[in-house]
Amino acid sequence: MPQLLLDKLKCLRNIEKMASKARANKLSFRPHFKTHQSLEIGNWFREFGVSKITVSSFKMAAYFARAGWADILVAFPFNPVEVENLKRLSGKIKISILVDNIEILPFLEQIENEVSFYIDIDTGYGRTGVISENFEQIESIIQGSRKNRQLLFSGFYCHAGHSYKAASQNERDTIHQKAISDLKNLKDQFHEYSPMVLYGDTPNCSTRNNFPGIDEMTPGNFVFYDLFQHSIGTCKMEEIAVVLACPVAGKYPEDKRILIHGGAVHFSKESILVEGKPVYGQMVEQTKNGWIPAAGVHYISEISQEHGILKNCRDIINAGRIGDVICFLPVHSCLTANLMNGAYLIL
Amino acid sequence: MPQLLLDKLKCLRNIEKMASKARANKLSFRPHFKTHQSLEIGNWFREFGVSKITVSSFKMAAYFARAGWADILVAFPFNPVEVENLKRLSGKIKISILVDNIEILPFLEQIENEVSFYIDIDTGYGRTGVISENFEQIESIIQGSRKNRQLLFSGFYCHAGHSYKAASQNERDTIHQKAISDLKNLKDQFHEYSPMVLYGDTPNCSTRNNFPGIDEMTPGNFVFYDLFQHSIGTCKMEEIAVVLACPVAGKYPEDKRILIHGGAVHFSKESILVEGKPVYGQMVEQTKNGWIPAAGVHYISEISQEHGILKNCRDIINAGRIGDVICFLPVHSCLTANLMNGAYLIL
Repeated sequence: MPQLLLDKLKCLRNIEKMASKARANKLSFRPHFKTHQSLEIGNWFREFGVSKITVSSFKMAAYFARAGWADILVAFPFNPVEVENLKRLSGKIKISILVDNIEILPFLEQIENEVSFYIDIDTGYGRTGVISENFEQIESIIQGSRKNRQLLFSGFYCHAGHSYKAASQNERDTIHQKAISDLKNLKDQFHEYSPMVLYGDTPNCSTRNNFPGIDEMTPGNFVFYDLFQHSIGTCKMEEIAVVLACPVAGKYPEDKRILIHGGAVHFSKESILVEGKPVYGQMVEQTKNGWIPAAGVHYISEISQEHGILKNCRDIINAGRIGDVICFLPVHSCLTANLMNGAYLIL
Repeated sequence: MPQLLLDKLKCLRNIEKMASKARANKLSFRPHFKTHQSLEIGNWFREFGVSKITVSSFKMAAYFARAGWADILVAFPFNPVEVENLKRLSGKIKISILVDNIEILPFLEQIENEVSFYIDIDTGYGRTGVISENFEQIESIIQGSRKNRQLLFSGFYCHAGHSYKAASQNERDTIHQKAISDLKNLKDQFHEYSPMVLYGDTPNCSTRNNFPGIDEMTPGNFVFYDLFQHSIGTCKMEEIAVVLACPVAGKYPEDKRILIHGGAVHFSKESILVEGKPVYGQMVEQTKNGWIPAAGVHYISEISQEHGILKNCRDIINAGRIGDVICFLPVHSCLTANLMNGAYLIL
């Protein structure tokens, strides 16, 4: 069955590059671990001085806490069904949460240990967060929290995820500038609370070199990168650190099609458009120690639960046999790694 | 975190209806278990006389074999990397496989126990299988297999999965008629081998009432159904047997948006179009024993790893609180159940 291969050297280079960028910009580095969800890969970060991490759920926080991570931000607006999980974890390690609505403060009255919170800020993404111009709402959350001595307002968090959808680097620049400027305004406006500012999606952290006013960066996907990041110019093809190795399971010369064992339960259904058509993975050539770009460019063009289909594959049909293993760069490495349950074959 | 709720009564009704249809048509019934991937739900089928099942991988076959299922078809073209798994399983239970290429026969020389094989037939789907008119290729596979005394040609298998993409019931009728007629021709052409004919995707098995020439039906999704099946008219809304229960995690009155904890790692990225726009789930109203259609129709319109976004939700914002749990019919229940690791809360 399909297997996820991880090129450790590429992965370490990706970590080193981002850690260096953080250092060069005097930023603290709190990488998001939702991409790899692996204790072993998590440990690689320690050698680059990382001691604080970001995750996207309490389940993931508990998993990494058990492995010794002692400063974890759950970067998802806190909701009351997680109160027991928060109480349990905050008794053991330093837990930070996101808040974007005053309505949840009463639920936090139950906590028995110190919990830091950041106000989630929306600079235009439109997914979560208080709109960056809404000082009044921010002030009321801060004031509301002050009744609770265990709840510490620590600053602002912003994921400018609309950078993923930007049509051009220019548009991405505008998104970044607005985010940086909005966060700077917030820092000034609320300076009496000495707020930290946490920021940093993979596209912006990978392509920008100045982060004025930002204190901590929290990108995640950069650890592996993927076809999507490559398609928007965020990474080089040779920086993508994972491939899914899939056996050829069928050859259909009548329409130059091949079948691989590798489907939506391995790659996910995430696609990018290539020449206007959705693709789910791009073929590379496996070498002794890793992989290189394939001679011909082949994409997975259709996918169902366990099946992947490639078209225009006369070369593979002529050269290869059923059972040969072919490797593919995934479109969205976070979803692929999640589906493969973090089981990597490390090269 | 999100939880998958299963309405046992709906599920049992779906199983009973399909089992009755099989019986009424004098068809053997070999349901596909890839949808639920659950030992407990698997056991429910036994009460309807089911003793033979279909799965889509050797991993799944091993899982159900351990639970006592003794006649399993792996409905994915056999590929040589699975030879050891096949040898192991065929020593314990009756295993059937699919073959659509003569190239894999040499690999099957290693088997030590009887294995049945069906020739996978393509009646127009274009995913796997020998093209139904290609008698020559079929004959050469049968002849090639006869050298191997452990390998028994048992008949033909067809998944007319293009019925999922058909634009209308008319088009689906044409697909079904061609499949039935092609399979009938094959049965006549190769009658000397007394081939069984296995057929049956959920859309056709749910909407058709005659299956001339077919011996065994193998649908899977019908056990739960989902929004996709409903969108093509294959099931009624009230037949969908699973919902994903997700906590509300954010309310954004400025654009009438809500956030749920429920994303691509719970629902999958599969979407259907509603008024030209992709949606990932449809809200229902939870009741004491299950759910009913919601007063207002709300869809999940955007999804990322853990986040789901619903728009035009003034009613929910006004009536509900953060932490309230909302239930959603999934677009593709097979992928949702796979992501939730078959952990059902059974109602």
